[in-house]
Amino acid sequence: MDYPKRKLIMLPGPTNVPDRVMDAMIKPMINHRGETFTTLLKEVTEKSKHLFQTTESPLILSASGTGGVEAAVWNIVRPGDKVVVPVYGEFGSRLSEAVELAGGEAIRVTSEFGTVPSLDAVTEAIRRTANLKAVYLVHNETSTGCTVPYVEELGKVAAERGAFYVVDAISSLGGYAIPVDKWGVDVCVTGSQKCLAAPPGLSLLSMSKKAAEYVRKDPPRVRYFDLGRQLDFLAHGETPFTPAISLYYALDVALDMLIEEGLEKRVERHSRLAGRFYSVLDAMGLKAFADPRFRSNTVIAGLYPDGLDDKLFRKRMNEEHDIVIGAGFGAMKSKMFRIGNMGEVSTAHVNRTAAAMALTLTKSGHQVDLERLAAVLDASS
Amino acid sequence: MDYPKRKLIMLPGPTNVPDRVMDAMIKPMINHRGETFTTLLKEVTEKSKHLFQTTESPLILSASGTGGVEAAVWNIVRPGDKVVVPVYGEFGSRLSEAVELAGGEAIRVTSEFGTVPSLDAVTEAIRRTANLKAVYLVHNETSTGCTVPYVEELGKVAAERGAFYVVDAISSLGGYAIPVDKWGVDVCVTGSQKCLAAPPGLSLLSMSKKAAEYVRKDPPRVRYFDLGRQLDFLAHGETPFTPAISLYYALDVALDMLIEEGLEKRVERHSRLAGRFYSVLDAMGLKAFADPRFRSNTVIAGLYPDGLDDKLFRKRMNEEHDIVIGAGFGAMKSKMFRIGNMGEVSTAHVNRTAAAMALTLTKSGHQVDLERLAAVLDASS
Repeated sequence: MDYPKRKLIMLPGPTNVPDRVMDAMIKPMINHRGETFTTLLKEVTEKSKHLFQTTESPLILSASGTGGVEAAVWNIVRPGDKVVVPVYGEFGSRLSEAVELAGGEAIRVTSEFGTVPSLDAVTEAIRRTANLKAVYLVHNETSTGCTVPYVEELGKVAAERGAFYVVDAISSLGGYAIPVDKWGVDVCVTGSQKCLAAPPGLSLLSMSKKAAEYVRKDPPRVRYFDLGRQLDFLAHGETPFTPAISLYYALDVALDMLIEEGLEKRVERHSRLAGRFYSVLDAMGLKAFADPRFRSNTVIAGLYPDGLDDKLFRKRMNEEHDIVIGAGFGAMKSKMFRIGNMGEVSTAHVNRTAAAMALTLTKSGHQVDLERLAAVLDASS
Repeated sequence: MDYPKRKLIMLPGPTNVPDRVMDAMIKPMINHRGETFTTLLKEVTEKSKHLFQTTESPLILSASGTGGVEAAVWNIVRPGDKVVVPVYGEFGSRLSEAVELAGGEAIRVTSEFGTVPSLDAVTEAIRRTANLKAVYLVHNETSTGCTVPYVEELGKVAAERGAFYVVDAISSLGGYAIPVDKWGVDVCVTGSQKCLAAPPGLSLLSMSKKAAEYVRKDPPRVRYFDLGRQLDFLAHGETPFTPAISLYYALDVALDMLIEEGLEKRVERHSRLAGRFYSVLDAMGLKAFADPRFRSNTVIAGLYPDGLDDKLFRKRMNEEHDIVIGAGFGAMKSKMFRIGNMGEVSTAHVNRTAAAMALTLTKSGHQVDLERLAAVLDASS
């Protein structure tokens, strides 16, 4: 195929990948049963501890985020197990289905899309469920641009009942901090291609002592996703199956960049730039889809003005400005756009996206007050 | 970590990856829900048809070979299903276990390691099994260096009983030809990092019409490996979940190289160089592990002379000659070495490996007749 043109990837994953991370992929091929890979695996594992803020060893699977989430389900949920799942978008819905496919009983706590279920409602569901096995939470709904603000608090409620607490933080970890040890998260899952700004193809899972013990005792029937086996092999510096070596090289450098910047500063940067994005929407007369209380710092979901054609808008952004933004999801497919505010995102990325949107909206007949937009961009840090 | 040194990777996977394939990985990141990825996916799918010699669309999963094999099991084997599995090494053994983990009844036809079960024995097992669901065959045992010579014939026997015929050709396809349409193979699985000489992390699966219909009708419970869903998304140029885009770029170029060389010539090259390797072993007084009737063209398994230390031998090959060869497997761990004769392997690769082995064997106290070796290398084409 033709060599693709480099665009500004403002998607909710994959994101722009820094050259330094990209270039790591072409390091020499090595034996995955040799010392060099063991060194690489150990370093990536150690560095991942910073991401999850854990003293336990996280696991890395050669599968994209969905694979990681399914591994987190199949290793814990057994037929008949009762599992509480807050559902406030597509990915929560998929998670609850995965629980059912594994034979579990998913007790859904729903809320209107654009909001998140209240902590009270989830707590009530947890407390009224006898023999609760686990609580599975999507931290950040990529489909609606909403984030749950009570990850820590929910951990306490799950712990009260002795339930496993699993958090899908695919599109948030690194842009948000989830200190898994402190907050009592047994398994936290994320993907390489979101806030870590590495290429897609790997998922990362933190494992609490309790989760590590459990998965070793009762392995799942899908061996590729057998986390106990992964832990056993990790103990002697290997993976059970051939790993995607080139993607490990990239992840290693992406984690270096996370550590060099510092997780706290990285989270602050995501938060600051998200604020800038929401101000931009507001200045252009566009509404964010999410209730202001739950607006995501990593996925900016905005509503089109009435009558604006989604496909044409994104096509113009892409072809005339070399900027790729995401479409809506499910029922919101043609009414919503989604912008990824993830990874190496910078002030210039926001400005460039804002400028292109202002022009494209104007071209599409939606009036933009450019002075107001400029003032907002000046005022926001 | 330190930048790894480039070695000659003579492993039974991963293999040496040509620079052209490596460099493809750093092509720009793209939207996996956009036109450029659709073009890439379509091209890789079309090119894969040459590899499998099929008119149906093969599938590509973002998982290494084991993931692909498990997908082939979970999409066809249902609880109680009877499945015949020839077992003549570690990977056949794993395959039979995967069938059982999926709830199937594995009817194993075994043979001593270093040989393969006879076609008669497998045929008999198939014919005496009422309600046979499938036959799962490992074509090439990476653990013993043996290859089954009756893939086509077994297809006819399976077809007689209306059973699905699934072939694990992870370490052989591309080095061997398996024309799946002609030979009646319903699902054939291979990996990116073996005879295709791409980096690890992708598996490829051919799908017969019959298999495609079946997997769509009765999806497995593990959605990441749901092949019907994969087919549905492929029909509109997408994958259900975020694909490992950089590895697709690499696979695309690896398939270009396969097509440029031509499958027939590539198979002939593997066969010729395998002959050269076996002559080298013979000239150095080393025995191949495999029965000569079943010697693999892609995995050369040799036995050490008595008293030779495996770890020291491979360490010297690696540190003194920059050549990485594989260790033995399971019961043969310290008695066997395995050399990958895969992908971009060339006459110079064989010569370089042979020369280094001659020196290393000599250093280890095993006499090598260098004139005989030189004569063999001269004589072999």
